[in-house]
Amino acid sequence: MSKIGDAIRTSNDNFMAAFNRGDAAGVAACYTTDARLLPPGAAPMTGIPDIAAFWQGAMDMGIKTALLETKEIEERGDLAIEVGQYTLTIQPEGGAAMTDVGKYVVVWIEDNGTWKLHIDIWNSNGAA
Amino acid sequence: MSKIGDAIRTSNDNFMAAFNRGDAAGVAACYTTDARLLPPGAAPMTGIPDIAAFWQGAMDMGIKTALLETKEIEERGDLAIEVGQYTLTIQPEGGAAMTDVGKYVVVWIEDNGTWKLHIDIWNSNGAA
Repeated sequence: MSKIGDAIRTSNDNFMAAFNRGDAAGVAACYTTDARLLPPGAAPMTGIPDIAAFWQGAMDMGIKTALLETKEIEERGDLAIEVGQYTLTIQPEGGAAMTDVGKYVVVWIEDNGTWKLHIDIWNSNGAA
Repeated sequence: MSKIGDAIRTSNDNFMAAFNRGDAAGVAACYTTDARLLPPGAAPMTGIPDIAAFWQGAMDMGIKTALLETKEIEERGDLAIEVGQYTLTIQPEGGAAMTDVGKYVVVWIEDNGTWKLHIDIWNSNGAA
C-alpha cells in the first residue's frame, strides 16, 4: 500500500479505537474542523461539535463497535478518496444483538501531516 | 463557477434529462465503464450494465424524476468530488405520489473531455 494508504489506515485505526471505547469526542477529532457528515436518515451536518453529538447519539442507541475495511483509494496530492466497507455491531438495551454491513466513501484531507476525514457518507447494504 | 463546475453541471443535466425521460441506458452512459454504484439497500455494483439495470429497476418501482443540486465541488486535475442534494419524485402504480430528499457524493473523472460519474453514493435524509 502507498504511503498515503498507510497514513489513512492509521487514521482509520484511530477512528475505530476511539469508537470501540465509546469515545465520541475522540471519533470526532479524526475529522477536519469543517468536515461534512452525511448520515442516512438525517440532514447533512458540518463541524466537529455536531459530528461528536451524532456519534454520541449512535453509541447511545447501542452501536458498540465499528469495523472499517478499505477497498479502494484514489490519491490526488493533499486529498484522497477511500471506498470501504463498514460493519457495525449493535446491542440495543434489552434487545438482540445485530450487525449492519454497508459501504462508505470518505474524502480525506491532509492536515499538518495527519489525514483527516473531510467528507463522510455511507449507507447500509440491508433493506431500509 | 469553474470550467470543471460547468462541465459537471452539463453532465448532471444530461443525467437528469435521461432519467426524466425514463432512459436507464442513457443514465448509465453518464458513468465510467468501471464506475462503482453504492446504492442504499443493496451491495455495491460495478460497470455500466449493472448500473443500467439498477436504474431501470428504480424507474420500474415508480421513480419518475430526479433533481440534482450541486452544493460543493473539490477539483484535483482529472478528478472532482461533488457533494449535492437530490430530490426524487416517486409515483408507485396505484399509490400516492411521494418525494424523497437526500444527499450524494459523486467522484467525477474526465474521460476524453467528458466528465463522467466514477463513484456514486447517496442516502435519504428521511427515516428508514
